[in-house]
Amino acid sequence: MTVRAIEWDPATDRLRLLDQTKLPGESVHLDIKSVDALVDAIAILAVRGAPALGVAGAMGVVTALDEGAERGWSADEVLEAVDRIAAARPTAVNLAWGVDQVRGLIDQGRDAVLEAARRVAVEDEAANRELSRLGADWLLARVDRPRLRVLTHCNAGALATAGWGTALGLVRELASRDRLELVYADETRPLLQGARLTAYELAQEGIPHVVQVDGAAASTILRGLVDCAIVGSDRIAANGDVANKIGTVAVALACREAGVPFVVAAPWSTVDLATASGEDIEIEERSGVEVTSYAGVRVAPAGSEGFNPAFDVTPARMVSAIVTERGVVEPATGQRMIEEG
Amino acid sequence: MTVRAIEWDPATDRLRLLDQTKLPGESVHLDIKSVDALVDAIAILAVRGAPALGVAGAMGVVTALDEGAERGWSADEVLEAVDRIAAARPTAVNLAWGVDQVRGLIDQGRDAVLEAARRVAVEDEAANRELSRLGADWLLARVDRPRLRVLTHCNAGALATAGWGTALGLVRELASRDRLELVYADETRPLLQGARLTAYELAQEGIPHVVQVDGAAASTILRGLVDCAIVGSDRIAANGDVANKIGTVAVALACREAGVPFVVAAPWSTVDLATASGEDIEIEERSGVEVTSYAGVRVAPAGSEGFNPAFDVTPARMVSAIVTERGVVEPATGQRMIEEG
Repeated sequence: MTVRAIEWDPATDRLRLLDQTKLPGESVHLDIKSVDALVDAIAILAVRGAPALGVAGAMGVVTALDEGAERGWSADEVLEAVDRIAAARPTAVNLAWGVDQVRGLIDQGRDAVLEAARRVAVEDEAANRELSRLGADWLLARVDRPRLRVLTHCNAGALATAGWGTALGLVRELASRDRLELVYADETRPLLQGARLTAYELAQEGIPHVVQVDGAAASTILRGLVDCAIVGSDRIAANGDVANKIGTVAVALACREAGVPFVVAAPWSTVDLATASGEDIEIEERSGVEVTSYAGVRVAPAGSEGFNPAFDVTPARMVSAIVTERGVVEPATGQRMIEEG
Repeated sequence: MTVRAIEWDPATDRLRLLDQTKLPGESVHLDIKSVDALVDAIAILAVRGAPALGVAGAMGVVTALDEGAERGWSADEVLEAVDRIAAARPTAVNLAWGVDQVRGLIDQGRDAVLEAARRVAVEDEAANRELSRLGADWLLARVDRPRLRVLTHCNAGALATAGWGTALGLVRELASRDRLELVYADETRPLLQGARLTAYELAQEGIPHVVQVDGAAASTILRGLVDCAIVGSDRIAANGDVANKIGTVAVALACREAGVPFVVAAPWSTVDLATASGEDIEIEERSGVEVTSYAGVRVAPAGSEGFNPAFDVTPARMVSAIVTERGVVEPATGQRMIEEG
């Protein structure tokens, strides 16, 4: 049983988040009582990961309805609050997508919205499991080795989703088939989602892994130490360009150079057909202090500013496969994302 | 006047190092009284950077002679101590090279060795200034822009050399010609030489710069934000393969993809004609704890190990230029390092 990062808590009848800024040291849960609290939790990355943000968006509409009822908001005030949730972070398409999955049900009342939001979570986990199977089949048909050595960047595990995981779901699937040798987990500066969260999930399940600095990824790949890289995504454009955590495109460059598959694992909800290419994806730029400091300790000198883009775009030509629950698309061969998937 | 990281202190008549593990917070100097103390200082990176290690190797022979005189070592015991200095770290060729510059003078006595070791330092700084001029000429002939935006990785500045710097020396040269716009300094995990040391040098001199995580380097280059990358080196093989701080090869991959020059700046003492190619370079693997912890705080869960290669090898085909004081070689065009340089 994988860890549950986001759920509607039946005991409190509120959205409940595992505060991922505290992991792996502490397991602290947040009971979300207001839209402000949810927007803050999204902004500080207490909840993060594109598919989990989709669920947070959908369930957040219930939070908005509950807060509106408590405070006597007008219908317009509720919708304004819902819009604030959808816009809490710009890059992951799933956040606004999750809101959109339930927004049309507001007129039918809170219970209908909650039921639909819960369905978003259930369907996300089911999609993760399906895409993990499809991705494992695709990889094992292409890599001739009893057990695979996999590099991953950031965290696209159970913590980043409603459950199971995308890139790490695929890793779990390989492990469950006894076809996994070792995971190289990039630490993923500045917020260390790899060292903190991916390592946490892998350690909990006894999956063999090592943590490396992000700068090591390219040489680990070029030295022949891995058979593939598997990452998640925050937005996939129609042409197959992939936005993901900063550092991903270096992994893709090295994979292409080494001739090993670079695989993107994501639910179809991450695909944004309205975005033609990566050039149209807004890249969130976060505070430079995340770079110049660590755990409250200033690292760089006082006169130095940080530059902190949170994501990068990997061009479709470097993407061997995009695996969704609808199947596998191979952008490097010229395939595009289409509705029939 | 640039900072002085290593010198023979006339006041104490001992080797004096600026403890770079304490920067930028504190400026603490170490008076090196024994070979053990020097080997420790090299191991923890209190002194680091290939050219500075060359000077440390040469001056360390004087330390060995002084300690031998004090403790009544035999000639063989002195030579054994000298060998320990030469082998304190494996990747940078300059360390053993520096020892070799003065080893043959041991029979002529301590003063002859010290004079030769001081000459190693003087010649290193002169080489840095010359290669900076040659590198700036080469770059400015190729980049059509009033002021250059430069990405650098790790620290190849005054702190990494006897003075002035190699990659940062070239940056200083561009700045002195008013041809520098901005430096993107990769933070350089795990030991943050970029955030701590490069930013410190640039801040001290008022050179415009930002610090970014190593994972941002490839996308900064691919987004067209820089005109070139300039790095130092720890060992250059005869075929032009370049060993440098882990993360360097990702910078080179991105530069080649973006069509911007990837320039290696190093004194000729870094060139190792006895090493045919990068495959023959020993890559130091350091403790995984440097990856899984930061400033004494455990980041990764207790069950997770770190994988910590300190260097990577950039293949000659990705290296636009290697600039030494003897001139510019262009490995990507098939040129090799030869004695005539």
